[in-house]
Amino acid sequence: MKILDGGITAPIGFEAAGVEAGVKYANRKDMAIIYSQKPCVTAGTFTSNVVKAAPVKWDMNIVENSEYAQAVIVNTGIANAGTGKEGMEYCKKTAKKTAEVLGIPENAVFVGSTGVIGAQLPMDKITAGIDKLVAAKAHTKEAGTDASKAIMTTDTVNKELAVSVEIGGKTVTIGAMSKGSGMIHPNMCTMLGYVTTDAVIGKEALTKIVKEDVVDTYNMISVDGDTSTNDTLLIMANGMAGNDEIRIGTSEFDIFKEAIHYVNETQAKRLAGDGEGATALVECTVCGADTKDNARILAKSVICSSLTKAAVYGHDANWGRILCALGYSGAKFDPENMELYYAAGDKKMLIYRDGADAGYSEEEASEILSQKEVRIIADMKMGNAKATAWGCDLTYDYVKINADYRS
Amino acid sequence: MKILDGGITAPIGFEAAGVEAGVKYANRKDMAIIYSQKPCVTAGTFTSNVVKAAPVKWDMNIVENSEYAQAVIVNTGIANAGTGKEGMEYCKKTAKKTAEVLGIPENAVFVGSTGVIGAQLPMDKITAGIDKLVAAKAHTKEAGTDASKAIMTTDTVNKELAVSVEIGGKTVTIGAMSKGSGMIHPNMCTMLGYVTTDAVIGKEALTKIVKEDVVDTYNMISVDGDTSTNDTLLIMANGMAGNDEIRIGTSEFDIFKEAIHYVNETQAKRLAGDGEGATALVECTVCGADTKDNARILAKSVICSSLTKAAVYGHDANWGRILCALGYSGAKFDPENMELYYAAGDKKMLIYRDGADAGYSEEEASEILSQKEVRIIADMKMGNAKATAWGCDLTYDYVKINADYRS
Repeated sequence: MKILDGGITAPIGFEAAGVEAGVKYANRKDMAIIYSQKPCVTAGTFTSNVVKAAPVKWDMNIVENSEYAQAVIVNTGIANAGTGKEGMEYCKKTAKKTAEVLGIPENAVFVGSTGVIGAQLPMDKITAGIDKLVAAKAHTKEAGTDASKAIMTTDTVNKELAVSVEIGGKTVTIGAMSKGSGMIHPNMCTMLGYVTTDAVIGKEALTKIVKEDVVDTYNMISVDGDTSTNDTLLIMANGMAGNDEIRIGTSEFDIFKEAIHYVNETQAKRLAGDGEGATALVECTVCGADTKDNARILAKSVICSSLTKAAVYGHDANWGRILCALGYSGAKFDPENMELYYAAGDKKMLIYRDGADAGYSEEEASEILSQKEVRIIADMKMGNAKATAWGCDLTYDYVKINADYRS
Repeated sequence: MKILDGGITAPIGFEAAGVEAGVKYANRKDMAIIYSQKPCVTAGTFTSNVVKAAPVKWDMNIVENSEYAQAVIVNTGIANAGTGKEGMEYCKKTAKKTAEVLGIPENAVFVGSTGVIGAQLPMDKITAGIDKLVAAKAHTKEAGTDASKAIMTTDTVNKELAVSVEIGGKTVTIGAMSKGSGMIHPNMCTMLGYVTTDAVIGKEALTKIVKEDVVDTYNMISVDGDTSTNDTLLIMANGMAGNDEIRIGTSEFDIFKEAIHYVNETQAKRLAGDGEGATALVECTVCGADTKDNARILAKSVICSSLTKAAVYGHDANWGRILCALGYSGAKFDPENMELYYAAGDKKMLIYRDGADAGYSEEEASEILSQKEVRIIADMKMGNAKATAWGCDLTYDYVKINADYRS
């Protein structure tokens, strides 16, 4: 696998753009388009929240009922959730307008929205934005970056990525852009994530890869425990790489799945590390668990603990909070027979064993907790199952951002 | 029911004290005792966390296996959790020493600890503290308040309460003290709560009351979603009121249970409102739910949402976060057919209906959200089930307190 310098426009035949449409923010890009020169096989996963934003319902319908899709149109500033029938109409109009300008069917246009819940979309600005996007779209690296920047809300960095793999002698490329930051506790997938690829692959195979992979990537991150109304992960494969079709059960399938996993895991970690107000990426690996499910439950419980997160922010080796979070996770284990470690870079330090403090240096622990990427490792000593979850620290800035998000 | 000015020493025959033992803090009371002149029937509920503090294990054993208990000894500063075999020994020694000085059996002494996880108790200070406590204990209101203050950690106010009811011509009194603040997300009961009563009642009846009542009181509050390793609620009935025994299925049982409910609900709300860094008590009532369980799940999900809590702190009527929290709670409902209200004092305001904004005044909503007690009401329009949960806002100070709790 090769890591490329690029994003969603890296695969053959994908164009993109990001423009200022004035939906909410002034002086910044707030609408994006992804367009494929050829129709794409698609797969996706969506929020498990009972309250689904209009665009989530729209996209779910396309993934389930349309054979192909060819474009994605995204706005930030307004989530188009909690907007009733009017909001659904606006979502439909957004897709319709995009379809008209591009000359493709309405049900080939995915719609993404992110931002404040409850406000209605300003449709004049949206339609003007669509015209600008279609005029600006290009198959260049810069155009992909523009789109990636346009989907940011409280994100502090744009998150794009591209990789390539050899599949039966052909180069297959995968690109991605994602946004996250707050209301991040995916339970199907993240806030907004888009993956493009020129691979030749059928819908069944693509769907299998996405469904299986999100369990260990997007579904293992949490910024604040709040599962958004808008979580969407979409993958679009336009087949322009010209490889022999990737089929389930072949080594090509495994190669491609591994590449998608790398892309999803990298993007998921970036979302966690750029959580609202975060100063550190916190990674929790649970090993030696009795089952994979329990390993996931334990790791995620640590990542979600407000007290653990606040202690990381304070560089305070308060391991009792980690032990506590493991204890209330719902998974059974023996607290008298397990080990806890802190790690960062190539330093790893035993903190807790045999039911008590392992006699570590507070100074060294604090040094580890001061790094930008902090790892917590829990060895349950029950079996061989392992899982990793990612989150971030809890800071003043998280509270600040969310106390006046709408103003 | 009469509300009295007092606490745990209000019932006949209960003595208490709070002293400075220097366990962790300087210049403040940090050990407490409750002593009953006669042996007490007891009941209790404890943390569901797999990691249980030594005193929790100790107390569970007494509630399950001893017919009577007569004293409670509590220290703050150190939780005696994550302390292994050594910690269990120290807990046992604490009970033994107390029993010796009081001249009662070792298994009649409950032990409570709260504070930092992982540190070992300084036994010299604990034993000296026990001597001081036994010398100081008294059946006075002041002594009860001293004990109530001594069990505080990051609590900003002490939480005590007393009420009396008439049971078959006799006055039965109930007293209580509780502490909470952080790591509050009880899943059986709160951090530390003690209830005293002079009622004549059997163990089965007392246990039934406690188990049934915590479901709608202590188990419906959350400060930060972290279920502590030390959660303990104990009730001790010494029978000195001389009433006819309170039996299950009688009107006397109902009167007594209602009084206990009032005490538990009041104390639970106080814990929520005094959550670490909190500026407001947030109450969420879900009505019109299909089942009582779903009403509880929905109400608690709102109370636990970091984003909802931060919005209350910012006095920002960002109701989308409430809708979102209801949506990911796990309970099913129709977001297009329900209503959301904000309320405070005698003001109540419709915010959301028919799937969208109800067209309220942002200014009035912000005024409501600026009060010390903010109510959120969700009418699910599915049935008649109702539940209420209590929490607090999420503030800079919560982060501050928890970033350097141990230092």
